[in-house]
Amino acid sequence: MDSTRFSAPLPFDSVAITDGFWQRTMELVRKEVIPYQWETLNDRVPDAAPSYSMRNFRTAAKMQAEKARKGAAYVPPSYTWRGFEALPEDAEHLEEDRFYGFVFQDSDFSKWIEAVGYSLSQHPDPELEKLADGAIDIVCAAQNEDGYLDTYYLINGMDAAWTNMRDHHELYCFGHLTEAAVAYYQATGKDRLLQAACRFADYVDAHFGPEDGKRKGYPGHEVAEMALVRLSEVTGEERYLRLAAYFVNQRGQEPSYFVQEEAERAAREGRPVRPVDLYYYQAEKPVRQQEEAHGHAVRAVYLYSGMADVARKTGDESLFEACKRLWNSIVNEKLYITGGIGATREGEAFSFPFDLPNDSAYSETCAAIGLVFFARRMLQISPDSRYADVMEQALYNTVLSGMALDGKSFFYVNPLSVQPVACRRDQRLSHVKPVRQKWFGCACCPPNIARLASSVAQYAYTAGEDTLFTHLYVGGSVTKMFHGTALTMEMRSNLPWDGRAQAIIHAEAPVQATLAFRLPGWSDNPTVSAGSRQPFVENGYVYFTGEWREGDEITFEMPMPVRIWNADPRVRENLDRVAFTRGPITFCAEEADNGSDLHLLRVDDLDPAHVRVERDGTFGHPTVRLIAQGKRTVPQPGGLYRAAARPAEEDVQIALVPYYAWANRGEGEMTVWLRS
Amino acid sequence: MDSTRFSAPLPFDSVAITDGFWQRTMELVRKEVIPYQWETLNDRVPDAAPSYSMRNFRTAAKMQAEKARKGAAYVPPSYTWRGFEALPEDAEHLEEDRFYGFVFQDSDFSKWIEAVGYSLSQHPDPELEKLADGAIDIVCAAQNEDGYLDTYYLINGMDAAWTNMRDHHELYCFGHLTEAAVAYYQATGKDRLLQAACRFADYVDAHFGPEDGKRKGYPGHEVAEMALVRLSEVTGEERYLRLAAYFVNQRGQEPSYFVQEEAERAAREGRPVRPVDLYYYQAEKPVRQQEEAHGHAVRAVYLYSGMADVARKTGDESLFEACKRLWNSIVNEKLYITGGIGATREGEAFSFPFDLPNDSAYSETCAAIGLVFFARRMLQISPDSRYADVMEQALYNTVLSGMALDGKSFFYVNPLSVQPVACRRDQRLSHVKPVRQKWFGCACCPPNIARLASSVAQYAYTAGEDTLFTHLYVGGSVTKMFHGTALTMEMRSNLPWDGRAQAIIHAEAPVQATLAFRLPGWSDNPTVSAGSRQPFVENGYVYFTGEWREGDEITFEMPMPVRIWNADPRVRENLDRVAFTRGPITFCAEEADNGSDLHLLRVDDLDPAHVRVERDGTFGHPTVRLIAQGKRTVPQPGGLYRAAARPAEEDVQIALVPYYAWANRGEGEMTVWLRS
Repeated sequence: MDSTRFSAPLPFDSVAITDGFWQRTMELVRKEVIPYQWETLNDRVPDAAPSYSMRNFRTAAKMQAEKARKGAAYVPPSYTWRGFEALPEDAEHLEEDRFYGFVFQDSDFSKWIEAVGYSLSQHPDPELEKLADGAIDIVCAAQNEDGYLDTYYLINGMDAAWTNMRDHHELYCFGHLTEAAVAYYQATGKDRLLQAACRFADYVDAHFGPEDGKRKGYPGHEVAEMALVRLSEVTGEERYLRLAAYFVNQRGQEPSYFVQEEAERAAREGRPVRPVDLYYYQAEKPVRQQEEAHGHAVRAVYLYSGMADVARKTGDESLFEACKRLWNSIVNEKLYITGGIGATREGEAFSFPFDLPNDSAYSETCAAIGLVFFARRMLQISPDSRYADVMEQALYNTVLSGMALDGKSFFYVNPLSVQPVACRRDQRLSHVKPVRQKWFGCACCPPNIARLASSVAQYAYTAGEDTLFTHLYVGGSVTKMFHGTALTMEMRSNLPWDGRAQAIIHAEAPVQATLAFRLPGWSDNPTVSAGSRQPFVENGYVYFTGEWREGDEITFEMPMPVRIWNADPRVRENLDRVAFTRGPITFCAEEADNGSDLHLLRVDDLDPAHVRVERDGTFGHPTVRLIAQGKRTVPQPGGLYRAAARPAEEDVQIALVPYYAWANRGEGEMTVWLRS
Repeated sequence: MDSTRFSAPLPFDSVAITDGFWQRTMELVRKEVIPYQWETLNDRVPDAAPSYSMRNFRTAAKMQAEKARKGAAYVPPSYTWRGFEALPEDAEHLEEDRFYGFVFQDSDFSKWIEAVGYSLSQHPDPELEKLADGAIDIVCAAQNEDGYLDTYYLINGMDAAWTNMRDHHELYCFGHLTEAAVAYYQATGKDRLLQAACRFADYVDAHFGPEDGKRKGYPGHEVAEMALVRLSEVTGEERYLRLAAYFVNQRGQEPSYFVQEEAERAAREGRPVRPVDLYYYQAEKPVRQQEEAHGHAVRAVYLYSGMADVARKTGDESLFEACKRLWNSIVNEKLYITGGIGATREGEAFSFPFDLPNDSAYSETCAAIGLVFFARRMLQISPDSRYADVMEQALYNTVLSGMALDGKSFFYVNPLSVQPVACRRDQRLSHVKPVRQKWFGCACCPPNIARLASSVAQYAYTAGEDTLFTHLYVGGSVTKMFHGTALTMEMRSNLPWDGRAQAIIHAEAPVQATLAFRLPGWSDNPTVSAGSRQPFVENGYVYFTGEWREGDEITFEMPMPVRIWNADPRVRENLDRVAFTRGPITFCAEEADNGSDLHLLRVDDLDPAHVRVERDGTFGHPTVRLIAQGKRTVPQPGGLYRAAARPAEEDVQIALVPYYAWANRGEGEMTVWLRS
């Protein structure tokens, strides 16, 4: 690792996003998602599954108040295991003093607060901030004296806390609370929630670690690792980093914590010990020995993100090597062309290498988001365009596909091929929805999109001491202090539709600095020029070092040809099939443009230069559509089985639209891969 | 319906099967399956899941003896719901007086006895008969005074009998007991078990029916319908037929029995009412209104078989029309080219029309067996070669595929494509095994193969008053009385490898008779000649009517060309793919002959005349293999995604072997459908 290349996202107020593409998305999050999400947090959306998140915090806060009033006389409720609570159908008849919803329901609040933080940093909104402050007050009132803050156990009884690290998400809730607290503090300067997060972190630090008497566990669902690094960075507290490193390094060690925990729980519950699928939890061996990305895809990339953070902060080469191996496992063998990961619904997990089915794909929105997290952390260590290309691919395709163009409905699962009748009638595809849903009982994806989309600035730019890196060409301005002088770079871009861009420098005085720009993998011979400056290129980034003055310009000519792709022939589903991309955008064919029975279409001209590129207003914002020459099989009469013959075909034009925009015109078929 | 065409299987001792192909299979059943099955029935096979079937009957018999001894003082055990009992890992520590195994475990015994009956009729074996008689004694000793005979409730407590018609298989066990009793009686003339079946049938008849005070239920898993018709035929008792008709007609009537039963059970168990998937049980509407075959595939075809039986015996036209609609639904939209049915593992069920995936196919062996049952019953009503073609297709491919060539291992699921790594690593394919298993906890398929394979004579020939129908060209002899004179037809056939056959008539005196022979759909212009007799052809059968004398010959010239098939383009998985058949045999490519990565093979010559047909000794009995000219894609280096190009290919010869023989040479890939 070359630590001189290390970089970090810029402070929120140093980047303003102004380009049309991302403004539109961020406004949707601000105007639609965040308010709607607040309603769901408070169980006020009639046809959506209630969250119970704020209700549980209120219940816990009331119990804390009771405890304070009664002092030693207080008797906490005794723990009874209720499993993943069923969501009662009738919210009118909830009992007082009971926990409702999934064990991880606290994180609904945290993800909302985090998104609110990012949004406030781009678009101040006193009303929203007041609402958030009020919610934070309730949450903080629920915290135990000792710092513990997970309402599931606060309400059900603390005697059982930490008895199910594997599945009860306490450290997951802790991690999200911490991420939210940092974001809200960085956005608003208010540290009430940050203080609560620190107290919770201190509690966790006091109870977990290598020292005698501390638990040797680690998160069942990872996220605390990267959250602790972030908390350490914002507070300067080294203990939090050490704790993150402990969680990373302890994972998968023998004897297995999860196996032991299961045995203890089985003994307590008087039932047989059940086998633990350690692969699902990325806990089958120490992380440095893991060669293949597997198990629950979101957990996996959250872990890898935390590993990269710890590797960077501790200069741990072997941990970075493990990150690279796992990265390569994903991108060489397990990545959809939409940037999605996690091929199978069984465990929401990575499947085996090259198993990338289209119609039954899981490709969870949150997993693509986690891949964006992982990619940026790899970039922070090693600015290499291979990481940024994948980050962009995930962001512009599967992440954006997760949300409707009106911001009102969401995909949890992002298939690469949909036949609506199959989704309705084939239970093997019951996870695949042909249209987006309003909300989910397990509502991880919508708030995750909200927090990522409103913080895209944190992914577009990072900076080291002497270098400002541009990873994504997102229009706006970014300001960075170099040796005491501010340099502002104004980026004008028409990405993702046009590869030309321009950056203009603003500086009150000349600034000595290195500006580094990614050369996107989707471009043919991109050129970046900055007057007479001589750049050098390394790992797909072009570097300009020198003195910058007001009005200096950098010009980007990044040709954006259509590309037609085959998959590695080991991807059995895609043999004899092609997919289309242009720039960072993956395209798909929809029934709305091409009629039904998309499987009868065939692309017979594989020359990308023959594909027509058209400006398109179909989706209410400027997009591009591709028109490819093709054939359509004309079905012939005959039985279920008939004598083999070459099919009769007719000429057709195949219209392709951006994958992220699919399923915004009612229910219909869709496919990314077309026969060739 | 034209009742003059009605026919029925011949008495067991009227048909002798002697041809090599079926002799081999029947000997396997006799020498391997039946003895092995007896060991499993008695929980004596170390590495197979114990059946507990005989143990349960013994336990129930002991309790009956206790009851007889104590008279009125006897207190039956009280019922406690234990769900589908877990099979204890340690058979040493079973408790006395408890029921073990699945609720339907009694049927293991019945299927065994039925197979034994057929086997004894073809191959007398006093030792085996003695064993069977002893087992029957135990079973009969378990019967309640009132005729009830299901050990699950006899042991757990009769107070809960008939409270879960939907899932507890009482009538399923009754049905199989009845089928077994009839078969054993017909084979041996011994009526001990038949008497028990009649007493059980009388009990059922006394408790179910349209009359006031009787239950309005019907079987959750069908089979009793056809069993009752069979019992009625052998005993002449009309009540049994009426009861079968009641079960058929009551099914799916409003209010739904299963829905009511669920509500009652929920109330008794103090739990919420759960939705009932009536489609799974073919109970969503009255059977005459059902248009599409759906739900659990075995249940469905067992029901349809019972419907056809009732339609034939009662002359019920509208019921026969329903049978035809459901038949067409299967063969036009839901039938694998291997004769398998039931595309999805979710509910072991039919999927939606044209959804016939290859690698995740369920295609249960028992479902193909049930399709054979249904087909023969349709033939009994309406001799039409379309029914016989499908019967033969199911029998020679999926049914036979269910058993290894050494008779020692079995497939429950019969996929049309297998990639072993996927079966191991993809939980979505966890039902698909790349090699046959020794036995199953839910051991429906092996004994079902045993009883079908040893009774193939019942499917090859049926007879009406004046007509002897030949449906399958199975070598052997069949004797039928015509107006008091015996006509014996000796069939010499090399099916399934050669379409030439010869029949020779033996008769002590001239016999006036009609002999009808199926013209197989797989043949090109088949000719059947019987000297100077003028035949007429109807619905794919050729009829010769006249006087037959000793030594008369019928000659069959049924050309058996290779055929190459496409599927209807609505079968999305098979677009651009072809499959090969010759005669009744469907072929497949195996890794053992073609190397791995079978998906890289392509058939480029679609002319069946160019396919080489070779005699083959690979499988220890004479078979045929096909050699097709093809190409193999030569994988090129490149990333997971690479610029689209026409693939590099090399010439190969693709070897195809009979599907029923696959997976007899170790673990490897297999595919029925090849790219074209």
